[in-house]
Amino acid sequence: MVDFSYIEAAHDRISSFVHRTPVRASRRWNEEFGAELFFKCENFQVTGSFKYRGATNAILQLTESERERGVLTFSSGNHAQALARAGEVHGVAVTVVMPDDAPALKIAATKGYGGEVILYDRDETTRESLGAKLAEERGLTVIPPYDHPWIVAGQGTAVKELIEDVGELDQLYVCAGGGGLLSGSSISARELSPNCAVIGVEPEAGDDICRSFRSGTLESVKDPVTIADGARTPSASALTFSIIRENVSEMLSVPDDWLIKGTKRYAETLKMIVEPTGCLSFAPILGGTRDIQGQRVGIVVTGGNVDLARLAEFWSHG
Amino acid sequence: MVDFSYIEAAHDRISSFVHRTPVRASRRWNEEFGAELFFKCENFQVTGSFKYRGATNAILQLTESERERGVLTFSSGNHAQALARAGEVHGVAVTVVMPDDAPALKIAATKGYGGEVILYDRDETTRESLGAKLAEERGLTVIPPYDHPWIVAGQGTAVKELIEDVGELDQLYVCAGGGGLLSGSSISARELSPNCAVIGVEPEAGDDICRSFRSGTLESVKDPVTIADGARTPSASALTFSIIRENVSEMLSVPDDWLIKGTKRYAETLKMIVEPTGCLSFAPILGGTRDIQGQRVGIVVTGGNVDLARLAEFWSHG
Repeated sequence: MVDFSYIEAAHDRISSFVHRTPVRASRRWNEEFGAELFFKCENFQVTGSFKYRGATNAILQLTESERERGVLTFSSGNHAQALARAGEVHGVAVTVVMPDDAPALKIAATKGYGGEVILYDRDETTRESLGAKLAEERGLTVIPPYDHPWIVAGQGTAVKELIEDVGELDQLYVCAGGGGLLSGSSISARELSPNCAVIGVEPEAGDDICRSFRSGTLESVKDPVTIADGARTPSASALTFSIIRENVSEMLSVPDDWLIKGTKRYAETLKMIVEPTGCLSFAPILGGTRDIQGQRVGIVVTGGNVDLARLAEFWSHG
Repeated sequence: MVDFSYIEAAHDRISSFVHRTPVRASRRWNEEFGAELFFKCENFQVTGSFKYRGATNAILQLTESERERGVLTFSSGNHAQALARAGEVHGVAVTVVMPDDAPALKIAATKGYGGEVILYDRDETTRESLGAKLAEERGLTVIPPYDHPWIVAGQGTAVKELIEDVGELDQLYVCAGGGGLLSGSSISARELSPNCAVIGVEPEAGDDICRSFRSGTLESVKDPVTIADGARTPSASALTFSIIRENVSEMLSVPDDWLIKGTKRYAETLKMIVEPTGCLSFAPILGGTRDIQGQRVGIVVTGGNVDLARLAEFWSHG
């Protein structure tokens, strides 16, 4: 089990390599929503997402011989970019297994950070089996996107900083994909703001953690259709789900429309780019479904990696 | 003349009402440009631009009787929104004179901050004559967008913060419209980083300060066609130009294409919205026309108020 001491140790380890991202606020939004909203801006993190925290924590815990052999992961999203860059900074070779139909932009971004990309044909193999085969053949250490104590501990440092910076909160909203950030955040919140309600938010189409939270057993939703590409993971892991069950107060799901609205409102008012997945945490408030009157509310903004042509589509219809 | 003591006094006066905006950096950009770049993010200022500094400084220096009677301005851009909000916060009525063909969005934003908007017909009167008439009839104090020591002093606080936060600089790039920000910035830079070159940047079509800087007399360019709407002012004022002549090292102009490129690069890498005018200061570097190797370079990002549908047009063509 991961406890707060893991997060403190991770924070000491990574703090000179990651940005202490700003916590932003808008007086106009506070007036509009009748609450105090604090936005932890991990879209401004190195590589554009919180994933750089866990990736850096993992890279820094490799043994000398593991560092020399290199690491492998099989995410095509923000974790791949984060791990590639952390490897580049610390001199560790990073191999990323991606399907050959992955977006050219993501392949390019990972290569741009010095990662070696190995493409596979979805019809012939799975990323897990190819990844395991390559890792064994080459002696690489697998760094998964969320199912690892190093990753959970690293991701938990964002909410640690948030509460250190603004003080205790009444409610905390966190985006949920595989549950690495949500589980880490929930541990930090329990320790530093014990009365804070921790709320995880998923897209409606990919609500596997909501379902698991209700049923008490790990459920999965395969290939959900949602613009929240960072939350398309089929399920949490045993590790992240056990932490979530223990620490999280409530799970919510929101429609994709609210995420598009979120990208607009963040751009108009906070003048920042947030990817659709990163809008999950603000969506229940924008959707008007939450009672937050008079509350101190933390919102974790997870990332800003979105194709500008995609945003242009969202925004051109007014 | 405005000197650094005015800026210090302004900073003391406004600092509990304005954001101390973050200074951001990108290690990847530092690698790409071979320099250390520091971005002072006034797009994250209250009302989305640095104009809130000068407006707040002006509102706070009114006498009790001036406060009761209210103020008037005749900008349709960021200064109008900033003054309207500063008036709303401090309980001072704000009247804004705008042409009746001003963009609906700008009229709405000013009204949204509680400003009273008075529209006029461009064919029948000028904003200055209508403004002067209204100010006299109603006993309002005119707060111009740049031609006033209170405004120059307030705008100078942004670069004061920048240098306080990151230390001395080798080069400082500042967007120039009427020269309020550039003149205030140049005074702060001369005081806090005496060896720093201060470079003002205008759009090619509206290069009145470049021309004035070369000729030594105040020149004007009427109704320039440029997407840098905050720099369409026909000329600097005697006040701002005299400060610029004394303190600014160099004036540059850049084509609009580089501003569009700027909006993209800011969005992709720093995950933030910058309006075209706010991209002026980064444009000479993006355009590759400057020698900044090994230098410590400050870049003032002035604002983020741009219609998202407009950005969508810029970004949809890849």
